[in-house]
Amino acid sequence: MKAAVLGMGAWGTTFAQVMADAGVDVVMWGRDEATAQEITVEHTNSRRLPQVTLPDRVTATTDASAALSGADVVVVAVPSQFARGILEPLAASVPLSAVVVSLMKGVELGTDLRMSEVVSQALAVSPDRVVVVSGPNLAAEIAARQPTATVVSGASTDAMATVTTACSNAYFRPYTNADVIGVELCGAVKNVIAVAVGMAQGRGFGHNTTATIITRGLAEITRLGLRLGAEGETFPGLAGMGDLMATCASPLSRNHTLGKHLGQGLTLDEAIAQTGGTAEGVKSCRSVQELARQVGVDMPITDAVVAVLHEGMPVDDMTRALLSRPHKSEGVDATPVRVDGTR
Amino acid sequence: MKAAVLGMGAWGTTFAQVMADAGVDVVMWGRDEATAQEITVEHTNSRRLPQVTLPDRVTATTDASAALSGADVVVVAVPSQFARGILEPLAASVPLSAVVVSLMKGVELGTDLRMSEVVSQALAVSPDRVVVVSGPNLAAEIAARQPTATVVSGASTDAMATVTTACSNAYFRPYTNADVIGVELCGAVKNVIAVAVGMAQGRGFGHNTTATIITRGLAEITRLGLRLGAEGETFPGLAGMGDLMATCASPLSRNHTLGKHLGQGLTLDEAIAQTGGTAEGVKSCRSVQELARQVGVDMPITDAVVAVLHEGMPVDDMTRALLSRPHKSEGVDATPVRVDGTR
Repeated sequence: MKAAVLGMGAWGTTFAQVMADAGVDVVMWGRDEATAQEITVEHTNSRRLPQVTLPDRVTATTDASAALSGADVVVVAVPSQFARGILEPLAASVPLSAVVVSLMKGVELGTDLRMSEVVSQALAVSPDRVVVVSGPNLAAEIAARQPTATVVSGASTDAMATVTTACSNAYFRPYTNADVIGVELCGAVKNVIAVAVGMAQGRGFGHNTTATIITRGLAEITRLGLRLGAEGETFPGLAGMGDLMATCASPLSRNHTLGKHLGQGLTLDEAIAQTGGTAEGVKSCRSVQELARQVGVDMPITDAVVAVLHEGMPVDDMTRALLSRPHKSEGVDATPVRVDGTR
Repeated sequence: MKAAVLGMGAWGTTFAQVMADAGVDVVMWGRDEATAQEITVEHTNSRRLPQVTLPDRVTATTDASAALSGADVVVVAVPSQFARGILEPLAASVPLSAVVVSLMKGVELGTDLRMSEVVSQALAVSPDRVVVVSGPNLAAEIAARQPTATVVSGASTDAMATVTTACSNAYFRPYTNADVIGVELCGAVKNVIAVAVGMAQGRGFGHNTTATIITRGLAEITRLGLRLGAEGETFPGLAGMGDLMATCASPLSRNHTLGKHLGQGLTLDEAIAQTGGTAEGVKSCRSVQELARQVGVDMPITDAVVAVLHEGMPVDDMTRALLSRPHKSEGVDATPVRVDGTR
């Protein structure tokens, strides 16, 4: 089997290793000639994935048609907001029978499309041929061959089986899930919850608070997802809870780190400067909030993140606001109940 | 409102503080005269909850009928396996209208009853009057008044409302859930999963592996729970995922710590000695496995924990065993599917 990986970032490079370790020949593509040379000759990508030696089966090129020629699987791992522009010129080179894998998270600004939809449009392949891979998959740990599982999600059973074969190895275990909407929604909203968890941790709170925000965060993602046609089982799974938990535990997550800086008292501008780049959750929290309001879903943690990031609410008021809401039952879709039992 | 707390351990003392901070007068009961004196006079319980000063509303006595007299809420927080023997002599002193709260986790050895059932029998109160409190509730963090949420679970809406009122305060937020079976099952099985997570961490694995084991662990608890009549929504909630996540993050959890020692290469006896006491999961993993087999539910992580603890399987073989199972879809009740698509 042959795979092409579009993009030479940390996650694309790691996924190239995963496929190579599953017996697949992998050709990576990117625009940086030096990195392509380094991957092919030295079997390293020192800028994006330091201290990792890639298998010999992984090579790289700046020639997209050479990379894509004869590929059974085409993996897309480029920055989400630039995906459409990068992919459109490559559409003609994608083999007609290839399955296309999106490793990207988020929603395209302007169109509000999920990344699998962007990939399908930009590469002009039918949605059936697009598969999403998402789970508790911090790149550095997978590159070190630590065991993990993931979700392979698509509309076609055959396409999911191809991708499962292409990436199953001794340390990487894929589970299939046909709920593409739910899987991609989890990937998009988790960054907002990760900011909230970071804020609480920056404020000095421990494991209970973290677990509470993640659990109630998952409940509000689930409420939104059910309203948008996702399956309830996806959210407590690997692409939902699993990814959220790994993200909130990782010191490398920008969203989480940004939240911590805010919790420690920095302003948003200072926190962004300290974090060394824009965290996805800063932009996406407003879109998530808008979407939730459009479909009439209550998302108190998302509301609190928006209020702290964009409306000047102090972090301390966030926890107070979350804890002082009317009492309610735990279920995902329950109507709030006050202490006196009235609704 | 007046509450009695039976037991003077860390969690019972912390819950006394929670209720006092909710405006309740609390009298604790235990057999140790020195501790009772210390709580009443010094407002501390230095042996079980060091560095915490309790509110003035908390006092303690060794006289059970004085503690129980006039109590609207009776909270039981004694060691699970000794609960029946401790409670039976107190049954006559429990006011007829009192709601009884169980803070205990696990299953009574010999009878296989859940702790709320043991409480109901031993205190001779109807099951309707018993309420369970369970969630991401590490005592030390709550004692420090860090924000957290919890689940208040019982068969009676009125009883749940009484307990909700008795423990709601600025840092402790209860959610109600009528699924007592699910809530108590989560509390009993989480210790087994915590041992597995500890083993992986002791072996040197990071956040992905932890998130994967917790997520797939929750899936197998859910499978068992659904078969036993629990509600699916309970498991990704605060008493399920929330408590599991906090337990697996805490360096104070015995189950988690024992697993870590095993992962680092100690034998079971050495690990138990290092952990400084028996971890609940060592005993309960076999009962959970037996129960799962009786009802025909597949629990691979529980099986692996039993195999490592009691059948001499090396920890390294555990991860290998978990990753090399036939590929399947992610859903809780799915039939395994192999890579080639056959079942």
